[in-house]
Amino acid sequence: MIEHRTQIRVRYAETDRMGYVYYGNYAAYFEVARVEMLRSLGFSYRELEDKGVLLPVVDFKVRYVQPARYDDLLDIHTRISVLPTARITFTYETRNQEGVLLNEAETTLVFVDAESGRPRKAPDDLLKVMAEKLS
Amino acid sequence: MIEHRTQIRVRYAETDRMGYVYYGNYAAYFEVARVEMLRSLGFSYRELEDKGVLLPVVDFKVRYVQPARYDDLLDIHTRISVLPTARITFTYETRNQEGVLLNEAETTLVFVDAESGRPRKAPDDLLKVMAEKLS
Amino acid sequence: MIEHRTQIRVRYAETDRMGYVYYGNYAAYFEVARVEMLRSLGFSYRELEDKGVLLPVVDFKVRYVQPARYDDLLDIHTRISVLPTARITFTYETRNQEGVLLNEAETTLVFVDAESGRPRKAPDDLLKVMAEKLS
Amino acid sequence: MIEHRTQIRVRYAETDRMGYVYYGNYAAYFEVARVEMLRSLGFSYRELEDKGVLLPVVDFKVRYVQPARYDDLLDIHTRISVLPTARITFTYETRNQEGVLLNEAETTLVFVDAESGRPRKAPDDLLKVMAEKLS
Repeated sequence: MIEHRTQIRVRYAETDRMGYVYYGNYAAYFEVARVEMLRSLGFSYRELEDKGVLLPVVDFKVRYVQPARYDDLLDIHTRISVLPTARITFTYETRNQEGVLLNEAETTLVFVDAESGRPRKAPDDLLKVMAEKLS
Repeated sequence: MIEHRTQIRVRYAETDRMGYVYYGNYAAYFEVARVEMLRSLGFSYRELEDKGVLLPVVDFKVRYVQPARYDDLLDIHTRISVLPTARITFTYETRNQEGVLLNEAETTLVFVDAESGRPRKAPDDLLKVMAEKLS
Repeated sequence: MIEHRTQIRVRYAETDRMGYVYYGNYAAYFEVARVEMLRSLGFSYRELEDKGVLLPVVDFKVRYVQPARYDDLLDIHTRISVLPTARITFTYETRNQEGVLLNEAETTLVFVDAESGRPRKAPDDLLKVMAEKLS
Repeated sequence: MIEHRTQIRVRYAETDRMGYVYYGNYAAYFEVARVEMLRSLGFSYRELEDKGVLLPVVDFKVRYVQPARYDDLLDIHTRISVLPTARITFTYETRNQEGVLLNEAETTLVFVDAESGRPRKAPDDLLKVMAEKLS
């Protein structure tokens, strides 16, 4: 399994009038978490795009257990457990500074060739690093 | 089945550098869609909250098929097919102005008493209207 | 003077834990207001971009008088009082459904050639329509 | 003068289809910058609110010079140069990782008593710390 932990501080802009982080704002947190996981493996998502590989999300699921509040310091635990093909699945667990589980989520993204707009295999260098970690 | 259609114009702010609506921004679209459905049934979500009934999302799933683009006029088709108890489930289908299916989604929300913070039954007047529509 | 009025319903996503619309979210409202003004003059901002004319904001000012709240139906009164050159200035007044002034704002945008990245004159057809209205 | 520097990594969610950070998203960055400045002085904005002191923005100005792009690591230089009364003014300079000036901004916020909804003087302990730094 490939694992990574990312800390994110809740911004005022991300709360809603219930006093909690708006349910849609976790999508941006999970994006940060997976990008930082890739960076920890030596890959920049920005460079990936600049080389013509896009990675849109095709599936997104969240189960909300407890809300996050303003200024909470969240810990997002990201995991990859299956070697990507044309698709890559990340799972996430978000906890607050007291260790309370706030939510569990999963995103599946697909590697797309920017020029043709068609799905493609994950880049070889990414696969190589991930295969080592997953074996 | 209770059904409702809501039109939403994509704002520039909601696109990302891929040129598409950012995957997390649909959460706000679905919120608009379900609030407008409730309004069409004679209920204001704002008044519901002012009376002490909160309705946080506990489960959210989206399957993305095609992206929405800037200035697209989206049609969100919202459905309720089961009478709510302490929970209420909405399903959504988003299409663009050409009728192309962009995504399918589902949100489950739970009725919460604002004072106690505990789950509660859906308000009686809401249940009555929904029971009539669903029968 | 060229004038236009746009109605915007406040979304839950746009409120913050103070119960008000987050101060940064008005930027997206003003964008909608100016795009709808251009549409009312027969111009699609999307088509403008597709033809290679970008219109980034170079100056933005807001004076907040009263807050907007969830589900408020805002009326944004947009005005252009000077014929654009390479720059175009829009002013805005936002009122709620009771007619209370919420804020006053101004944005200046610059016409940029997408290919060269350099400022350029406003498109001729836009100038022609605006000159007629302003004379 | 009171000064503070905050680093913010641009998220994908914050870009728009021009490939730049959407002009309205800097408001959230400046909020993070001023909150982190207060934290560096020993004050938690969250605690301030919990004690009944709100701090809404009444004036906001930005002059955009160059755009920020996805994954840029921004440096926001925040300054207070005048001792707050019922109002507090922060100025900001945003630069990217190459040191290029991206924008200059200013926000004025007003101290409000949460219960009465009326303006009030800045809290004494905050004033004391700021007076020392500014003298």
